[in-house]
This record gives sequence, structure tokens and C-alpha cells, in this order.
Amino acid sequence: MNLKRGLITVISGPSGTGKGTLIAGLMKIDRNMHYAISATTREMRSGEAEGISYYFKSRDQFDSLIEQGEVLEWDEFCGYRYGTLRSELETKVESGLDVVLDLTVKGAMAIKKAFPEDSISVFLLPPSIEALEERIRGRKRETEEQLKDRLAQAEKEIECVTAFDYVLVSDSITQAPKRLKMIIDAERQKVRRNPDILERLGLR
Amino acid sequence: MNLKRGLITVISGPSGTGKGTLIAGLMKIDRNMHYAISATTREMRSGEAEGISYYFKSRDQFDSLIEQGEVLEWDEFCGYRYGTLRSELETKVESGLDVVLDLTVKGAMAIKKAFPEDSISVFLLPPSIEALEERIRGRKRETEEQLKDRLAQAEKEIECVTAFDYVLVSDSITQAPKRLKMIIDAERQKVRRNPDILERLGLR
Repeated sequence: MNLKRGLITVISGPSGTGKGTLIAGLMKIDRNMHYAISATTREMRSGEAEGISYYFKSRDQFDSLIEQGEVLEWDEFCGYRYGTLRSELETKVESGLDVVLDLTVKGAMAIKKAFPEDSISVFLLPPSIEALEERIRGRKRETEEQLKDRLAQAEKEIECVTAFDYVLVSDSITQAPKRLKMIIDAERQKVRRNPDILERLGLR
Repeated sequence: MNLKRGLITVISGPSGTGKGTLIAGLMKIDRNMHYAISATTREMRSGEAEGISYYFKSRDQFDSLIEQGEVLEWDEFCGYRYGTLRSELETKVESGLDVVLDLTVKGAMAIKKAFPEDSISVFLLPPSIEALEERIRGRKRETEEQLKDRLAQAEKEIECVTAFDYVLVSDSITQAPKRLKMIIDAERQKVRRNPDILERLGLR
């Protein structure tokens, strides 16, 4: 019997802050961390596999999962839906596996509500508005108008930091993943996450 | 104005687990950590100084501080009283200083009650009952009878782990302080402990 439950770490923050880089860095230094697999309505591409890249669903299947309350959060990009399945998180948590997700603020709040005891939320902040602007400009994907919109959106999102458990500043590609791992390792030391500690040490 | 408040870390655990060694190790690697100074009714010894070694109080002063609710927890050893003053913790926390204390389980609970938002409690466990017995025996201070009492007392205390926030196993003199620092550093990343984060980054 595995009494120890997995921990869900949700990362949010304005786009351009480096959430993807942060999570990739974390996976490299934390061998006990797993990705949460999303569900999507887009078609499987070559090299992808069911339940590894995504859970591939038809639009009808996805809609009926939403109706059943099985999709904790979802969004639409380029006409396709992407979401987090309750079953995916439940299975991993109950198997004692730790998972990490990169979600919108709204998505993060939905996970927090569904797994109040088993999840932590981390908000990734840019070192400054200037640094964020520089990063978005560096991608050279946006017009000046779009850039202004993105920054205004980022400033609104940043106000949501108060709803999160932890704050992390993306000031260094090497240090930020280490600080994230530190937060997760500290959470793993919480008494309530170790119901079997006394048995494991032979102290009970 | 210093919006950031200090964090109180309370360490408890059966005697012989190595709380003193743990805290000494922490002080070496965490330059932002301070000792909480206790109050005592014993006399000042040469080399000691008021407010540095202890706050030295007469028995009458100590009793009147207890009556005023100013002593959060206290104990008597060899006829002298030792306790933690509310004012000591309040001053440090309000100045943004982080402090660490080594207390009994009862003492730890009193601090938690007095500073529910500003304190964390860490329970130090021996790696096993055998390891604890070995450490207590190693000190060669006790008779076989006293040793049995100590171990029975330790096993009772260990049941109190559930009332604590974090658990730490004293399996290594070098690793345990690092894991304690990790817990404290993670707590320092909590959003609610960083009310000034957006201002500091120029994000508000």
C-alpha cells in the first residue's frame, strides 16, 4: 500500500516569463518529477503516441468529458481544444507520482480547487517589466501594437500573484529551476505529505 | 518601510535527536538566521551579556512577565526558569529578522498559537529508535533505568509529529541543516511572505 500521495505543482505567469524553460530545467534536475499529460482534440502527428504526448479525443468525446466534469480546465488554440483531465491527475497523485503543469491563472485556480491538499501553485514573475518586454521583443513575433497588448495583459496577470502559494522570479535559467525544486522538496518534507514517516523509520 | 516580516522557525524533537547540532549547522550556512534570545532567572556568568546571551530577570520580574502573558513558554531547570518572551519574537519579526528556536513540543505549540502566520514548526526525528538509543548511550550520562525512561519518553514525543508543519530526519550532520535551510528558503518564497514583491521588481 502506497500511503504517500503525489504532489501537483502548477506553474503560471505571464507569457514570455519562461515557464517552459523553467519546467524543462526542473525535469533535468528532478528525476521524480513527471509531466501531466493533457487531452487534446487535435490529430495525432507522426512520432506522437496516445497517453504519452497527449490523450487524443474527438471533439464529441472532449465535450462529453467537459459535461461530466472530467476536464478541470481547458482552452482553445487554432480551433483545437487542450485540457487537463481529472483522471490523469487523480491516477498520478494516487500512485504517489509528482507532476508539474504549466497553466493559465484560471487553469491554476481550477486545479487548486480540485486538489486543495495535493497541489501547490507557483507564480513565475519576470525580473522586471523591462526584462519581460525585452524577452517578448526578442521573439520578434509581434507587431508593436501586439507587443503593447501583451505587456498590458502581463501587467493584469501579474496582479493575480496574490492568489498563488509561491512566487519565483525568472532571473536565471539555472537558478530558477533550482529554486523551484527547493520549493517542491520542502513541500515533500511537510508532515501531512508523509503519513507513513513513522512506519518507514520503524518508529511506530 | 519594511513590509517583509521575519519568519520564526521552531525546532522540536526528542532529546538526543541532535537539535542543537542541527541549529548550529543551520547558522553556519544561513547568514540571515538569528537566534531568539531567551529570558532566564539564573545569574549572569562572566562573558555573558544582557540581551545577547539571555535577558536576565529576577524571579519576581519573570513571574510578573508570566502574569502579563509576556512569556510564551517557559520551563524550569535546576531551579532556574528559562522562557521565550513575546516581545523578543515580535521585535525580530517586525524588523524582518528570521529567528530559530529549539523548544519542547509544548513550547513549539505555544509559539505556533502566538504567531500562526509568522512561524513554522519542524519536528526532528531520529533515523530509527536504534539510532536514538545509540546516541543517548553514547553520551554515557544515564543509567540503564534512565535510558529506558528517556526512550519511552521519546516514543511518546514522536507521536506529536502530526502537530508539526514539517518533518526532518537527523540522518546526517551535513545534510540535515541543508534540508532545514531548504525548508526555510522555500517558506521565504511564499507569496504571503512577500507582500512587497511587485514593488521590489518595479511591477506595480
